[in-house]
Amino acid sequence: MLSRFLSPRIQELAHQLREFVDQELVPLEQNAFHRPFQETEQALKALRPKVKAMGAWNLYLSKDHGGPGFSLLEVAQLSEILGRSPLGHLSCNCQAPDAGNIELLLSHASPALASQFLHPLLSGDIRSCFSMTEPDFAGSNPVNMGTTAIREGDEYVINGHKWFTSSADGASFAIVMAVTNPEAPKPHMRASMIIVPTDRPGFDLVRNIPVMGHAGSGYHSHAEIRYTNVRVPVTNRLGAEGAGFALAQERLGPGRIHHCMRWIGICERSFDLMCMRAATRDMGNGSYLGHKQTVQHWIAESRAEIDAARMLVLNAAETIDQAGSKAAAREISTIKFFAANVLQKVLDRAIQTHGALGITDDTMLSYWYREERGARIYDGPDEVHKSSLAKKILADYGMPRSTH
Amino acid sequence: MLSRFLSPRIQELAHQLREFVDQELVPLEQNAFHRPFQETEQALKALRPKVKAMGAWNLYLSKDHGGPGFSLLEVAQLSEILGRSPLGHLSCNCQAPDAGNIELLLSHASPALASQFLHPLLSGDIRSCFSMTEPDFAGSNPVNMGTTAIREGDEYVINGHKWFTSSADGASFAIVMAVTNPEAPKPHMRASMIIVPTDRPGFDLVRNIPVMGHAGSGYHSHAEIRYTNVRVPVTNRLGAEGAGFALAQERLGPGRIHHCMRWIGICERSFDLMCMRAATRDMGNGSYLGHKQTVQHWIAESRAEIDAARMLVLNAAETIDQAGSKAAAREISTIKFFAANVLQKVLDRAIQTHGALGITDDTMLSYWYREERGARIYDGPDEVHKSSLAKKILADYGMPRSTH
Amino acid sequence: MLSRFLSPRIQELAHQLREFVDQELVPLEQNAFHRPFQETEQALKALRPKVKAMGAWNLYLSKDHGGPGFSLLEVAQLSEILGRSPLGHLSCNCQAPDAGNIELLLSHASPALASQFLHPLLSGDIRSCFSMTEPDFAGSNPVNMGTTAIREGDEYVINGHKWFTSSADGASFAIVMAVTNPEAPKPHMRASMIIVPTDRPGFDLVRNIPVMGHAGSGYHSHAEIRYTNVRVPVTNRLGAEGAGFALAQERLGPGRIHHCMRWIGICERSFDLMCMRAATRDMGNGSYLGHKQTVQHWIAESRAEIDAARMLVLNAAETIDQAGSKAAAREISTIKFFAANVLQKVLDRAIQTHGALGITDDTMLSYWYREERGARIYDGPDEVHKSSLAKKILADYGMPRSTH
Amino acid sequence: MLSRFLSPRIQELAHQLREFVDQELVPLEQNAFHRPFQETEQALKALRPKVKAMGAWNLYLSKDHGGPGFSLLEVAQLSEILGRSPLGHLSCNCQAPDAGNIELLLSHASPALASQFLHPLLSGDIRSCFSMTEPDFAGSNPVNMGTTAIREGDEYVINGHKWFTSSADGASFAIVMAVTNPEAPKPHMRASMIIVPTDRPGFDLVRNIPVMGHAGSGYHSHAEIRYTNVRVPVTNRLGAEGAGFALAQERLGPGRIHHCMRWIGICERSFDLMCMRAATRDMGNGSYLGHKQTVQHWIAESRAEIDAARMLVLNAAETIDQAGSKAAAREISTIKFFAANVLQKVLDRAIQTHGALGITDDTMLSYWYREERGARIYDGPDEVHKSSLAKKILADYGMPRSTH
Repeated sequence: MLSRFLSPRIQELAHQLREFVDQELVPLEQNAFHRPFQETEQALKALRPKVKAMGAWNLYLSKDHGGPGFSLLEVAQLSEILGRSPLGHLSCNCQAPDAGNIELLLSHASPALASQFLHPLLSGDIRSCFSMTEPDFAGSNPVNMGTTAIREGDEYVINGHKWFTSSADGASFAIVMAVTNPEAPKPHMRASMIIVPTDRPGFDLVRNIPVMGHAGSGYHSHAEIRYTNVRVPVTNRLGAEGAGFALAQERLGPGRIHHCMRWIGICERSFDLMCMRAATRDMGNGSYLGHKQTVQHWIAESRAEIDAARMLVLNAAETIDQAGSKAAAREISTIKFFAANVLQKVLDRAIQTHGALGITDDTMLSYWYREERGARIYDGPDEVHKSSLAKKILADYGMPRSTH
Repeated sequence: MLSRFLSPRIQELAHQLREFVDQELVPLEQNAFHRPFQETEQALKALRPKVKAMGAWNLYLSKDHGGPGFSLLEVAQLSEILGRSPLGHLSCNCQAPDAGNIELLLSHASPALASQFLHPLLSGDIRSCFSMTEPDFAGSNPVNMGTTAIREGDEYVINGHKWFTSSADGASFAIVMAVTNPEAPKPHMRASMIIVPTDRPGFDLVRNIPVMGHAGSGYHSHAEIRYTNVRVPVTNRLGAEGAGFALAQERLGPGRIHHCMRWIGICERSFDLMCMRAATRDMGNGSYLGHKQTVQHWIAESRAEIDAARMLVLNAAETIDQAGSKAAAREISTIKFFAANVLQKVLDRAIQTHGALGITDDTMLSYWYREERGARIYDGPDEVHKSSLAKKILADYGMPRSTH
Repeated sequence: MLSRFLSPRIQELAHQLREFVDQELVPLEQNAFHRPFQETEQALKALRPKVKAMGAWNLYLSKDHGGPGFSLLEVAQLSEILGRSPLGHLSCNCQAPDAGNIELLLSHASPALASQFLHPLLSGDIRSCFSMTEPDFAGSNPVNMGTTAIREGDEYVINGHKWFTSSADGASFAIVMAVTNPEAPKPHMRASMIIVPTDRPGFDLVRNIPVMGHAGSGYHSHAEIRYTNVRVPVTNRLGAEGAGFALAQERLGPGRIHHCMRWIGICERSFDLMCMRAATRDMGNGSYLGHKQTVQHWIAESRAEIDAARMLVLNAAETIDQAGSKAAAREISTIKFFAANVLQKVLDRAIQTHGALGITDDTMLSYWYREERGARIYDGPDEVHKSSLAKKILADYGMPRSTH
Repeated sequence: MLSRFLSPRIQELAHQLREFVDQELVPLEQNAFHRPFQETEQALKALRPKVKAMGAWNLYLSKDHGGPGFSLLEVAQLSEILGRSPLGHLSCNCQAPDAGNIELLLSHASPALASQFLHPLLSGDIRSCFSMTEPDFAGSNPVNMGTTAIREGDEYVINGHKWFTSSADGASFAIVMAVTNPEAPKPHMRASMIIVPTDRPGFDLVRNIPVMGHAGSGYHSHAEIRYTNVRVPVTNRLGAEGAGFALAQERLGPGRIHHCMRWIGICERSFDLMCMRAATRDMGNGSYLGHKQTVQHWIAESRAEIDAARMLVLNAAETIDQAGSKAAAREISTIKFFAANVLQKVLDRAIQTHGALGITDDTMLSYWYREERGARIYDGPDEVHKSSLAKKILADYGMPRSTH
C-alpha cells in the first residue's frame, strides 16, 4: 500500500537493492560480528562492482558529486531497504559517520582538503570518524565541551578526551569538535570542526569501548580517544572559527532521516521474522503459535506502529526536501523518539515470539536488541528531543521561557 | 506541515468550517449535554442556512445526490475539523448513524423507499437509527444474532431484542438487522436489513440506556429496543434477502474513516487545551506548568501520536478512494485500534495537565473522557480488529487457519 | 492467601462487614447517584443500628473516643471491604472528609469546640467539609494560597475563593485553611485552620461543581465557595496560629491509607465483575470470553497488581502503626501513585471485558471510571508524589538540592 | 523498612553476605564474562573457605544435609543479596541448575547414586546440568517431547536433541528428561528423569549456543546436546518410571523463589547505580541529572515496583513454607511474570539514566540487560504463566474448560 509513495524512478533500484541485501549481505551477517570486522570489510569491498553497477554507490549524493541525485524522500525509502541488514549502508558507502562527513566536506572543504580527505572517502579507499562526544560532559547539552584547540602560529594544538568516536579504529582521519573561541559570548559559537589525521602524534586511541559485551573492531567499533598536544594546520578547520555547532546542525536533518529509515528497515526484517515464526511454529494438535491472541496482537500493533513511523519519517524527509532542515526542526525531533521506541517494541516482541531461539545468535534479533538499545540514547536521548519539541510547541501558545 | 495533504479545492471550506465550529458550535457545547438534547437539535437547525451557504450540508455526498462531491480523502480532512466539537457532524447532516443509513439507502432503496425515507433524511427533516447490536450476543461476532424476521405473506414479522441502537429516541425509522434465512449454509448469509418505522405497533423503545452516568435524549442517546411482532412490508427490505452482512460491510469502510477523523479532531482540540493550560498555568516563582519535563513529554508524545494517527487514517482513505473498501481492509482495521488508543492517551494526558479542572465539566475533556471510552469497544473491540488484521498478515506467511 | 495478615480480632467483623456491604449497600447503589443524594443519606441513616450492632460505627476511632480501637493495619483491611461499595465508608461514619476532620478535632479542639462540632460529628448528626484547594493556585504546592483570615479583635475576617470543597452541600461547618501570618519567614508557617459554620454571613456556596457530568448533591458533591468577610471567633482556630500545614500533614498519613484501601476494595469488586463476566459470557461454539488469551492476561495482571498494591499499603499502615506518619513518609508517597494507577488499569480492563455493557450504568464500573479518574489528581497529582519520593531517595545518595 | 521481614537469625549473615558480595565478588565481575569462565570458577573456589566460615555454603540446605537449615522465606532474603552479583549464588554452591539437582537427588537418589553424584555436588567438586528443553518442541508445553529412553535389559538407550542445557560445558553429569512410557494414557506420565554422565559414548555437546553475542564457557554457557544411543543403567533413573514431570514440578516452587529474589537483587544493585548516577552527574549550572523530573519518576516508579515485587515473592515463599508448593501455585505463577517485568523496566531505566555509559560494559547494566532478557522466556514465557494463573482464577468463577 505504501508503494504509492515510491517515486517511479527508484522502483527498479529498490527492487534490485532488496535482492542484493537478501542474496549478498544476509549471508555475510552471521559471521560479521563474531570475528574481526576487517574480514567483513574486505568481503564488502568485493561487492562494490555490483553496487556500482546498480547505481547505488554513494547513494546519498547528488549527480554533481557522482551520486544518483535522488531527493531525500527517495533516498529515505532506499535507506529502509539497506537497513534490513547491518551491512546495508556500509556496502553502498553511505554509512554513518562517513556519509555525514562527506556532506560536511562537500560544503566546507577547501580544494586542498577535498583532495586529501574527501576524494578518497568518496572512492571508499579510506574511512573517517567524527569526534564530538566527551565522557565528562552530558551529551544532551553539546555546547558543554572540554576539548580545546589553541592556535599557535599556523597550527591548532588540540587537547581533550573524547569517547564514542564511532569507527575510529582503522579510520584515516577524525573531524574533531574543539573549543577555539572560549570567550565567545554565546556558548554555541565557541567550537570549531577540525580535521585530524589519525596518525598525528598525540592522537591516542585508548580503546575500542566494550559496548553490550563487545569491543568490536574496524568500522564496527566505538573508540575512546585522548588528544594530547595534537598539532594540525589551521587550514584543516572546516568553516569559520566558532562555526562548529552551526555545521553540526546542518549535518543533523538528513542524518536523522537515514538513521530512522534504517531503524524501519530493521523493524520490517524483524517483523518478517516474527510473522514467519508465528506462522510456522507448530504447538501441537494443529495449533500454531500465530493462533495465540497475544502473538496476533503483537503483530497487529507492530504493523500499525511501523507504518506510522514510516509515514512520519517520510513526511519529515519531504519537508526537508521542500523547505529545508530548519523548517523541519519539529518533524526531525519527533521521528527520533517515535521511531526509536517503535524499534525497541518491535524487537522485543519479535524476540518474545521466538522464545529461547530469540535470545540466541541464530537470528539477527539478539544483535539488534543489543546494538540498537543505543537508539534511544545517541544523537541526544529521547527525553531531550521530547522536551525540545514541546518547548517549541508551547512557545506557540505563548509560554514564557524558563528563567531557571 | 500536513497542509500539503489538503487538496486546494477544500482549503477555503476547511477554513470556513473551522471558524464555524469555533464561533457557532463551541458556544453551544456547555449546555448541550446537561439539558434535553432536543434543545440543541433546535439550535443546530437554526444554523442550517449557514451550513448550506458554506456548501457543507450533506458533506459526504456526491454532487449527484446534492453533496459537494469530495473524495473520501478530502472528506476525511473536513471531518477532522467537524470533530473538534461533538456538534460538528450533526450540524452538517453527516452524523452517524444517519450518514451511513443515507449511503445504504442511496445504493439500495427502491424509489418508493427513497421517497419515504431517504429524501427527508437528506433534507434533515427526520432522523434515523441502525438497530444491529444485541445484548445477548457478542458484538465481536456479528453473525451471531437472535432477532428474526419471519415472512408472512407480504410482510415480515419481526421479533427481537436490541440495544445500543444509537439515536433511536426521536428517530423516524430504524434499519433493523434480522435473521431472515436461518437455514442458509453460511452464517453471514442469514440476515437482512429491513426498514422499520418507529411508530409501528410492537416497536418498544424500552429505555435510553444510561451510559457513563447519563441516559441522554434525542439524537444523543443509545436505546434498548424490543421488537414484538412488528410487521412491515417485505418491500421495506434493503438489498437481497440474506445480504444484510454484505451491506453492513459496505457501510463500514468510509464510516470508519469518519469516526477516526472525528477522534483526531477531538485529539487536536484536547491538545490545544493541554498546551494552552501548560503555557499559561503559573506555578509561582516565574515557573509555568509547561516547564515541567513530564508535561513537555506528554505534549511531545501527543503531537507525534496524533500526527501518526492522522497519516494512517488519511492513507486508508486514499486507499479506499483508489482501490475500494475491500482492498483497504487491513488499513481499515489498523486505524480503528491505533486511533482509538491515541485518543484515549491524549485525553488522559490533557486531563492530568489540567489537574482538578480536568475532571470538571468546565472544559470538554471530561465529556470526551466519558463518551469516547466506547471508542475502543464499539464497531468491534480493539482486540477483535487486532486479531483480524494479524490473521490476514499471517496468512501471507502461510499460517494454516485455526481448526478450533 | 493474604488472610495471614488479618489479625484474629478483626476476622469476625471483616466477615460481617462483607455481608453488610453485599446485602445492604450494593442494592442501594444503582439509585444512589442518579437522584438527589439526600435520599441515599436517609437510607444509610436507617442502617445505622445495624452498623452499631456490628461495632463498625466510627470504625477508625480508638476506644477512648467510642470507636473499636483497631490499629491502622487492622482498620486498613476493613477499609478495603467498605471500599467495595461507594456507600461503605459513609455507612460507618468514617467517610472523607469527616473522618479526617474528626481526627483534627480530637487532637486540637478546645472543649467548647468539641462540644459544638466534634460530638455531633461523632454521632453522625451533622456532616462537615474541608476547604483548602483554590482554583487560582496549583494544588501541588499547597503553601501557595490566596485565602486570608485577618484578625480584627476577637474575630478572624475571612476572604477567599475555594473549590473542590467536597461534601460542603449540607455540611454544618467547614475547616478552612487561610493565611493568618503572611509575613512568616517560611511559607509553610503562614496559614491556619479555622472552623467556619456554613450558615455564617459571607459563606457563599457558589455551586456544586459539575464533575464528570454530574454536579451531585449532598454528601456526594464538590463545592465552589466564596468567603466574603466571613467573621468567626478567633477561638474557632485549631492549633496554633500558622500551624495549618503542620496539622494538614498530620491528617495525611492515615487518610492516605484509607483512600488507598478503598481503591483496593474497588479493584477487588471490579475484578470480581471482570472474572464473572469472562467466566460466563458465552461466545458461541462452547467458547467463553475467558478462554481468550487477552482476557486471561488482563485477569492475571490485575490479580498480581492488586495483590502488590495491597501489600504496599498494608506495609505502609504497619509502618505508621510502629513508627508514625513521619517515618513512613516514603511509603505514604509510594502507595498514592502506585495504587491509583492499579485502580485505573483494573477499571479499564474490567470495562473492556464487559464490552458495551461496561460503559453503561448497569454495572458500577462506569461510575468508578468517572469518579476515580480524580484518584491520580487529588491529594496532589501522582507526578508530585513521584518527584517528592525521588528527591528523598536521591538525598541519600548525596544529591545537592536544586538551586532553581 | 522491609527489615521487619528479616528474621533475627539471618540478620548477621545477611550483613556478612552483603560485605562479601561487595568486597570479594564485585571486583571479579568485570573480567568474569570476557574470558574463559573457568578462570572465574577457580577464583570462586579460592573464596570457598570464607563462604564456609560464614556458614553460607550450600545455603539452601537443611541442617541434616549440611546446610544452615533456613526457611524458604529466610533463604529468599539471602538470595536477594547474592543476586546483587552474577557470581553470588555460584560462590555459595547454590547456583542453578545444581541447586535444583541437589534437591532432586536428596529426595530421589538411591544411596549408590547419592554417593556417586550427590556427594561430590554438595562438596562442590563437580557441577551438573539439567537437560529438558528441546529445540523442536515448544517449551511452554513441556509434556511435548522428542527424546526417548528405551529400555534394553538393565539399560536405557537414550536418543534425542536438547538445547539450553545450561552449564553442561564442564559438568560431570546431566539429568535428562526422556520419554520412557510413550503409551501412558496421560501425556504428563510419559517421561522419566535419568542421570547421564557426560562422558558416556553418544553424549555429544554440539556447541555452547551463542546467546546475546556470546557462546560463553564452563558454568556460564547453554549447550546444545545430541544424545545418540547413550546407554546408562536403569538404576540411574530418579523416582518412578513416568514420574519425570511430577519431579520437575516439585523442583519448581523453591527454584522460582530463588530466581525471583536473584532478580530483585539485580534490581536493587541497578537501582543503586541509577541513583548514584542521577545524584552525581553534573549537568552544568548547578544542575544535576537527578533534578530532571523524568529521572525522578523513573526512580520513584522503580522503588515502588521493586518493593512490590519483593513483597509478592516473600509472600509466595512464606506460603510455600507454610502450605507447600502445590498450595502456592498461584503465587508462584504470579511472581514469575511480575518480577521479570519489573527487572526489565528497572534495567531499562538505569541504562537510560546512564546515557552512553549505560550501554558500555563499564557498568554491569549492559550485562544484565543482555543476560536477563531471557527472564521473560525461560521456565515458560510470561504469557504461559499469565494464562495458567487466569485459568485457575476463572475456574473459581465457574468457567467451563475450553473444549479446544
